[in-house]
Amino acid sequence: MEVVQVLHMNKGAGETSYAKNSKVQSKIISITKTVTEEAIIELLCKNLPESMGIADLGCSSGPNTLTVISEIIDIIYSKCSNLGCPTPELRICLNDLYSNDFNDVFGSLPAFYNKLKEEKGTDFGQCFITGVPGSFYGRLFPRKSMHFVHSSSSLHWLSQVPSGLDSKASTGINKGRIYISKTSPQSVLDSYMLQFQKDFSLFLKSRSNEIVPGGCMVLSFTGRKSMDPTSIESCHQWELLAQALMNMVSEGLVPEEKVDTFNAPYYGPCAEELELEVQKEGSFIMDRLEAFEIDWDGGVDMPNTINGTLSSGQRVAKTIRAVIESMLESHFGRDIMDDLFQRHADLVDKHLAKTRTKYTNLVIHLVRKG
Amino acid sequence: MEVVQVLHMNKGAGETSYAKNSKVQSKIISITKTVTEEAIIELLCKNLPESMGIADLGCSSGPNTLTVISEIIDIIYSKCSNLGCPTPELRICLNDLYSNDFNDVFGSLPAFYNKLKEEKGTDFGQCFITGVPGSFYGRLFPRKSMHFVHSSSSLHWLSQVPSGLDSKASTGINKGRIYISKTSPQSVLDSYMLQFQKDFSLFLKSRSNEIVPGGCMVLSFTGRKSMDPTSIESCHQWELLAQALMNMVSEGLVPEEKVDTFNAPYYGPCAEELELEVQKEGSFIMDRLEAFEIDWDGGVDMPNTINGTLSSGQRVAKTIRAVIESMLESHFGRDIMDDLFQRHADLVDKHLAKTRTKYTNLVIHLVRKG
Repeated sequence: MEVVQVLHMNKGAGETSYAKNSKVQSKIISITKTVTEEAIIELLCKNLPESMGIADLGCSSGPNTLTVISEIIDIIYSKCSNLGCPTPELRICLNDLYSNDFNDVFGSLPAFYNKLKEEKGTDFGQCFITGVPGSFYGRLFPRKSMHFVHSSSSLHWLSQVPSGLDSKASTGINKGRIYISKTSPQSVLDSYMLQFQKDFSLFLKSRSNEIVPGGCMVLSFTGRKSMDPTSIESCHQWELLAQALMNMVSEGLVPEEKVDTFNAPYYGPCAEELELEVQKEGSFIMDRLEAFEIDWDGGVDMPNTINGTLSSGQRVAKTIRAVIESMLESHFGRDIMDDLFQRHADLVDKHLAKTRTKYTNLVIHLVRKG
Repeated sequence: MEVVQVLHMNKGAGETSYAKNSKVQSKIISITKTVTEEAIIELLCKNLPESMGIADLGCSSGPNTLTVISEIIDIIYSKCSNLGCPTPELRICLNDLYSNDFNDVFGSLPAFYNKLKEEKGTDFGQCFITGVPGSFYGRLFPRKSMHFVHSSSSLHWLSQVPSGLDSKASTGINKGRIYISKTSPQSVLDSYMLQFQKDFSLFLKSRSNEIVPGGCMVLSFTGRKSMDPTSIESCHQWELLAQALMNMVSEGLVPEEKVDTFNAPYYGPCAEELELEVQKEGSFIMDRLEAFEIDWDGGVDMPNTINGTLSSGQRVAKTIRAVIESMLESHFGRDIMDDLFQRHADLVDKHLAKTRTKYTNLVIHLVRKG
């Protein structure tokens, strides 16, 4: 599986679309807003550029994409108004993988620009929004062109399934599991950690070329509090999905080797791992690292479109489906998706009835040395 | 009709898609290649930038989009190799309206980047390709960020139907016609000319802010040799389409007022009009202006996918349909399209049997003063 080509949020505006099932990610954006705000204000107070490069990495499509941008613009506009300075020319780059639904994003830009003009008036400077397709594990932007880089709910995705664990490798290394699990052998844990280290260090190196001295990043993603990568907060969601798949194996609906050869290109790091990579790469200072918990369903109501409300399990399953269906489909085929996520929803409901497990989200503020 | 929101080449890869019916535009790109080449070489010899901004305005989707970019990269690479200099960092901006199929373009980038790496090796500098949605009749890029701007087969589209001639205006000003025609009253000609002047001057003003001193543009588009805007080379294609529509009116298939209220947001200027606008705006020197003729079907064979070959009329109608169907559909509805373009093809065949009318294409090379 080529993650770069396969991974994209579910397109369109249908029942299983990311646009309709991205309330958890929206909640995370709103929780981390203060960190974003403080980072931008600190940046503008140090040095107000004439032209300001801004990027959102893993922008996706749907309502969250322009919410992030809109918030960043509001923060800059209001700070510049306070300072009595003109707003800089804003170069806003929306980045995601090649198969992201950029058409959807671009289609909402005329209304977005009109609203901007109405709200901010004509003395608001120029604002150029562009689409930058490509992997953030590599160069995306010209040298020293960026002042503020944002990314939310994206950096837990690895550039690839860890080598040795992809579908071409020998089966059975992580039998019946699709991510790190309590029962995974040490070699699986090592492969995942190594891939994370490689990826995150390449991410930092790429951004260090692109961000001006004093520029900064605010990155938030799913991670863990515990140093143990097999801790429940970090793995249990994948564990339940693996269980749903193995149930289907036992009923002959999915060949067992299909499960044995699938491993998620995902890693939820802990603070210590992040700090180590930032130190090793050496271009950034970690100004802030915070962890917060979020319910699997984001604690957000998602009323069913027909009657009544969905169970927590159904809400969680829909949220996860909107994100990872493109990957699962390319490996397991489209036909099993409805069944799989129904089973997954039931398992989530059963689990949540016993334990209110939550995601751990990490948010970090990194400043480019200079 | 909001041109900015409605106009886009036919999407996808089907029988009526622009991807399958853009050989005429491809021929034009290849004819103007020498002008592009000479302009870029002149630019690089004057001053080789470390980072070079390049834009293709009206990039569309399908094979032509990346052909243009690929040619530009080849020219730069080969000139830098000759000079023994490293290739500059290339910032390539693909621009088109918001509804252009950017997903299609972005989907072909992984293969494009791989080919670039294979052909040019690793000593080739960084190349960043981005999508910039928006109208080129207005600002698109940051101040002084562009070195070379290219546009092919796009600038004959106006920003809007000339005021007074759009569907909300009183009917009957240009009765039974959809563009300037021998029988159009002077007010129609004036409206079209005025809209062209406004648009082209706004185009120049916008680019003058974006292009560095000494930077340049190579623009090619349909125009005319004659100073008379009602000359056959300029109008007859629209005349035949209007005839096809009026035939359908006479058979009760299309309401007459629908034709009376449609006017194409198009203008084919002559050299004198272009020169005047360039002079009036004042930021650019016209280094070169050339006119060339091209067959309505581009002189290119487009074999039918089933059996035999298409008639010239059918080839011409398919080429035009791929470009203007989105506009016609939004005004006349989707249902009449097949019938309309069959009638149009027949009228084109009849016309070409009598007279081999050709398009006149203009190509201009403008250098930013500074």
